[in-house]
Amino acid sequence: MQVTTEALFTEARTARGYLPAEVPDATLQAIYELMKFGPTSGNCTPLRIVFVRTAEARDRLVPCMDPGSNQAKVRAAPVTAILGTDLAFPEKLPRLFPSADAPSWYAGNPAKTTDAAIHNAHIQVGYFIIAARALGLDAGPMGGFDGGAVDAAFWPSTPKRSIVICTLGHGDASRLHPRDPRLAFDEACSLA
Amino acid sequence: MQVTTEALFTEARTARGYLPAEVPDATLQAIYELMKFGPTSGNCTPLRIVFVRTAEARDRLVPCMDPGSNQAKVRAAPVTAILGTDLAFPEKLPRLFPSADAPSWYAGNPAKTTDAAIHNAHIQVGYFIIAARALGLDAGPMGGFDGGAVDAAFWPSTPKRSIVICTLGHGDASRLHPRDPRLAFDEACSLA
Repeated sequence: MQVTTEALFTEARTARGYLPAEVPDATLQAIYELMKFGPTSGNCTPLRIVFVRTAEARDRLVPCMDPGSNQAKVRAAPVTAILGTDLAFPEKLPRLFPSADAPSWYAGNPAKTTDAAIHNAHIQVGYFIIAARALGLDAGPMGGFDGGAVDAAFWPSTPKRSIVICTLGHGDASRLHPRDPRLAFDEACSLA
Repeated sequence: MQVTTEALFTEARTARGYLPAEVPDATLQAIYELMKFGPTSGNCTPLRIVFVRTAEARDRLVPCMDPGSNQAKVRAAPVTAILGTDLAFPEKLPRLFPSADAPSWYAGNPAKTTDAAIHNAHIQVGYFIIAARALGLDAGPMGGFDGGAVDAAFWPSTPKRSIVICTLGHGDASRLHPRDPRLAFDEACSLA
């Protein structure tokens, strides 16, 4: 499928409001079917997603967001994705990475397991946002929410932990502010 | 610039070896000029990069990698990127996020600062890998290295911390193994 780097990076913006266009469930699945292929450590792919798109589920999610604009953003979005990590990801490794005894890398080491779960799921958040844009959606990732409340509401009594909440839809460009600056290449990078 | 989702996701593979083709410095800068636009929390963009492409720098990096295949991968790659995070990123926020007193979100809270630095830089690693692929490169991200040794060799006495080491170049497809499986949509995702 053809896309452009403008749509993925240079002209894409974090959505601040959405047009009243529906997002089909097939498009949400298509995001996953792209982003699932992004590389992770030992193919551990710990990211787990709940796509919130009914009024009932939205009503459960809104009070978990920080008061103010983050609650309003979820209320106004056609879909909001709860992006989390599965601390029990090693259970899946015999199938996901069959060429080694990958569960042994984590056995008896909960700190290493949690770090791998959190770090790799954040890398996958990057893939998720770019994949959503590749499918013509705009994304509005947020960190301001009560993770414990989200987990209790959507992943009770599981080892899944929410890490980022991301609205999805067709962004209302009229609501955007000018883009904030980025560091110059020489400030963020060096050649050795 | 035109790209395809096949090149970014569905047909892209983690490189296991590279063809002897050079990677111009301009291409390395172009990766940054794409990935820098990916969203981060309050535009904090903490990722910092050292592109290792001289024999001298490669010789300093190789002993920091886990013995065995990771050392061989760095030796064989035309370029290896050290991807790290800047724990002092709040100093840049008055310029990067001028619409709020963003440094106050982190002042006096080193744990929150470190979490934001680590989490956002990992999201940016996802952008980095996809941006490299958009520019026609293959990437080989690795977690098996001595972070303290890398930091001492490339970022001595700074608040920068390496998080992922990623080879870059034109992958040798003949060296690839069959792709490992991914979880099905219904295993990783749910609709609410």
